[in-house]
Amino acid sequence: MSMKHLSKGSRMPSPNRGKLRLFTNKFCPYSQRVHLVLDAKKLQYDVVYVNLSNKPDWLYSISPLGKIPALELENGDVLYESLIIADYLDEKYHQHPLHPKDPLRKAKDKILIEQFSKVVNTMYKILLTSSRNNDENRDIIMEGLETFEKELAHRQGPFFGGAVPGMLDYMIWPWCERADLLKLFGNQFALNKDKYKRLVEWKGRMHEDAAVRKTLIDTESHIKFIQSHRAGIPEYDLISG
Amino acid sequence: MSMKHLSKGSRMPSPNRGKLRLFTNKFCPYSQRVHLVLDAKKLQYDVVYVNLSNKPDWLYSISPLGKIPALELENGDVLYESLIIADYLDEKYHQHPLHPKDPLRKAKDKILIEQFSKVVNTMYKILLTSSRNNDENRDIIMEGLETFEKELAHRQGPFFGGAVPGMLDYMIWPWCERADLLKLFGNQFALNKDKYKRLVEWKGRMHEDAAVRKTLIDTESHIKFIQSHRAGIPEYDLISG
Repeated sequence: MSMKHLSKGSRMPSPNRGKLRLFTNKFCPYSQRVHLVLDAKKLQYDVVYVNLSNKPDWLYSISPLGKIPALELENGDVLYESLIIADYLDEKYHQHPLHPKDPLRKAKDKILIEQFSKVVNTMYKILLTSSRNNDENRDIIMEGLETFEKELAHRQGPFFGGAVPGMLDYMIWPWCERADLLKLFGNQFALNKDKYKRLVEWKGRMHEDAAVRKTLIDTESHIKFIQSHRAGIPEYDLISG
Repeated sequence: MSMKHLSKGSRMPSPNRGKLRLFTNKFCPYSQRVHLVLDAKKLQYDVVYVNLSNKPDWLYSISPLGKIPALELENGDVLYESLIIADYLDEKYHQHPLHPKDPLRKAKDKILIEQFSKVVNTMYKILLTSSRNNDENRDIIMEGLETFEKELAHRQGPFFGGAVPGMLDYMIWPWCERADLLKLFGNQFALNKDKYKRLVEWKGRMHEDAAVRKTLIDTESHIKFIQSHRAGIPEYDLISG
């Protein structure tokens, strides 16, 4: 199993029929969501790392739009869209359930995940494109973080999901892992320890979670990656393992 | 219960605690999705029609972003986002289940609903904004319709959900109800009877469904509404009942 990201001209690795296989990228936060669910449930799966700036032709035979994450199932069927894959895994594999059992609590968590997508889109603009860190972007991120800070205060904790991380924790985690990067790109506000006390504590606890640790990338490597991405030559292979 | 759309300056109708209440608009396809689920499950609910071009102030106390559909639950909690509400209702009320029980079939249907959002966005551009019915828009809609035509061929039918309409049928229906409008705004391609034989037949069967009939609006009224919307004074009250 290659630990390097495969590019155009590569051969698609042969599947291990009967085993899940995730088409992914080490720096893709949407893919990381699916890793977190698979790892929280301690499922066995193969990975195929894909170079997103020079996609292999065979990717389109797996995922019609060339999108990752794409999860190949035991029978050869393929699912895509991170949230749809996450829900599928939670419904299919009952160990370590991630969504609340109560339909109302589940729906409310899904609304929060949906709301978080505004933060996601804004972070993407600030970190990876030339969009300036203007007041509007700043407001969107601060409003988003405040919603989640308040939410943690209302809940029993220590995680959004309760005693252990649940679906909401894992679905927002990839961008929270990258929150410190905002400081380095001109933001003073991101995860301020006084303003977002509960979120900062939550982040510390998430860092110790076994599933989170499996895909955790240190801030220094995130910075290097973002710099390479901004320079137009994303170094997907800059971390080993 | 007012059958007219309420505007700024109106008083919010008092809730019937213990009964579902849907904040909706007769011409909003996203709201229609929630009506279809409620009606398919034969749930009792009150409705509050909202004027989207002159929203009542009290709407923001119900739905923080002023978005509809918003479903007020028996306990006063409020859910929004049409797909999240639809999933909630299907999980909470087991009569007439709409999603497939099998997690894989359910995930595949959710991917199709997600794909359909491209058709939705393009129809919106063509019908309600000044966006021209150009080749790109045309291709997006034709590709979308072809995906669904093929999908119907692969399935047992007569509906996407099987013997009766399921979640996928209802979630795409509001835009299919409006498909004929594309012809009137310059498109010759929409739901061509030879090219999309199965979809056209499916549409005929959907027209007979009891839940669909409850919110069905005739094409003439849809045209009048679109003309009023394009003129800048949307006539939400142009149909009675």
